[in-house]
Amino acid sequence: MTPAFEKLQQALKRLPGVGYRSAERIALHLLVEKPARLPELVAALEAASRTVRRCTRCGNLAEGDLCAVCADGRRDQAVVCVVEHTPDLVAMERSGAYRGVYHVLHGRLSPINGVGPDDLNWAALRGRLESGEVRELILALGNDVEGEATCHFITQQLAETAGDSRGTREDGAVAEGEGPGGGAVKVSRIGFGLPSGGGVLYADAVTLRSALEGRREYS
Amino acid sequence: MTPAFEKLQQALKRLPGVGYRSAERIALHLLVEKPARLPELVAALEAASRTVRRCTRCGNLAEGDLCAVCADGRRDQAVVCVVEHTPDLVAMERSGAYRGVYHVLHGRLSPINGVGPDDLNWAALRGRLESGEVRELILALGNDVEGEATCHFITQQLAETAGDSRGTREDGAVAEGEGPGGGAVKVSRIGFGLPSGGGVLYADAVTLRSALEGRREYS
Repeated sequence: MTPAFEKLQQALKRLPGVGYRSAERIALHLLVEKPARLPELVAALEAASRTVRRCTRCGNLAEGDLCAVCADGRRDQAVVCVVEHTPDLVAMERSGAYRGVYHVLHGRLSPINGVGPDDLNWAALRGRLESGEVRELILALGNDVEGEATCHFITQQLAETAGDSRGTREDGAVAEGEGPGGGAVKVSRIGFGLPSGGGVLYADAVTLRSALEGRREYS
Repeated sequence: MTPAFEKLQQALKRLPGVGYRSAERIALHLLVEKPARLPELVAALEAASRTVRRCTRCGNLAEGDLCAVCADGRRDQAVVCVVEHTPDLVAMERSGAYRGVYHVLHGRLSPINGVGPDDLNWAALRGRLESGEVRELILALGNDVEGEATCHFITQQLAETAGDSRGTREDGAVAEGEGPGGGAVKVSRIGFGLPSGGGVLYADAVTLRSALEGRREYS
């Protein structure tokens, strides 16, 4: 094909979930089959690039200062769910099970890869915790090594800020730190276990261990 | 998410092979994870949209008057393979088995849907046939009703141009029409049958019928 076509194909191939063949198909679609969609797509990309920024409070996508969640008066602003990335927030919202607000870290601690607290959206979360407006903190981070390290760091910082050690319970299940505002912050982690619809037969060892640890009394 | 984000997601969802979730993932990728790729993609789209046009001879994608295949002196310009769409041409090229040139019809005859010869890139093909430069015509169209109708139409037109009826043999396998240049045009259709690697067990009835009809002596 032509050089410009190949350049477009390469740019498309860099998108997540788009391979060589899909990129070719999309490029042909936009150049041959439905050329009217190309300027529409360019306009949508440019408009989004121009207007979408980070929420100054939580790091979610926003078009003004605050994102739709932070600006929503019906959401409980005192309950903050900490997620790694924006797609995690989107998934949580899709579940429809959560009525609090969020904090997007845009990553997680990874000393091996040189990712420290300053590389994350951590200063803003510390500010929110120090302001005393947060009553409950839900850590919705993965249960791999880096997720664990990030959870540990946050609870440790919370305890140091509160000036006592109540925030660092060994089992990490529910800990309480005292904010400078004097109110205790309840800290929890989301549950791990068997996914809905998944059988024990197909679950891996780590999931089953989490499911056993997270068992609840059944009556 | 934000209105501009949702508009971008909708524009992405219209692309072939991109569903709701992939569109969300791509939009987040371009806005949050790798924002530097967004202007790159826009530039590639705009450059391709600006420079890529149809080859004046065959209808393939081109940046000048002629596409890379038509401009290639090593390709046999007297052998023309007729395909429905540009992706078909791309697939033929990928096979590496063909050293002639192409003609892209950009569709096929479909009286039911109101698609006639004037809606296809047919006038240009007639021009090429009338010029006497074509020695062989390979019809690489599907073997469904519309593909059959299109093949029939082309051979019929070729015979009428030649002023005799040698171009309309009943089995349609290999027919010859006489161009105005006086040279006979050899017409063939690509073979149909079992795909490479596919077993008889998994082939549908139409494919098996084609495979039987297209059998060759084995020595």
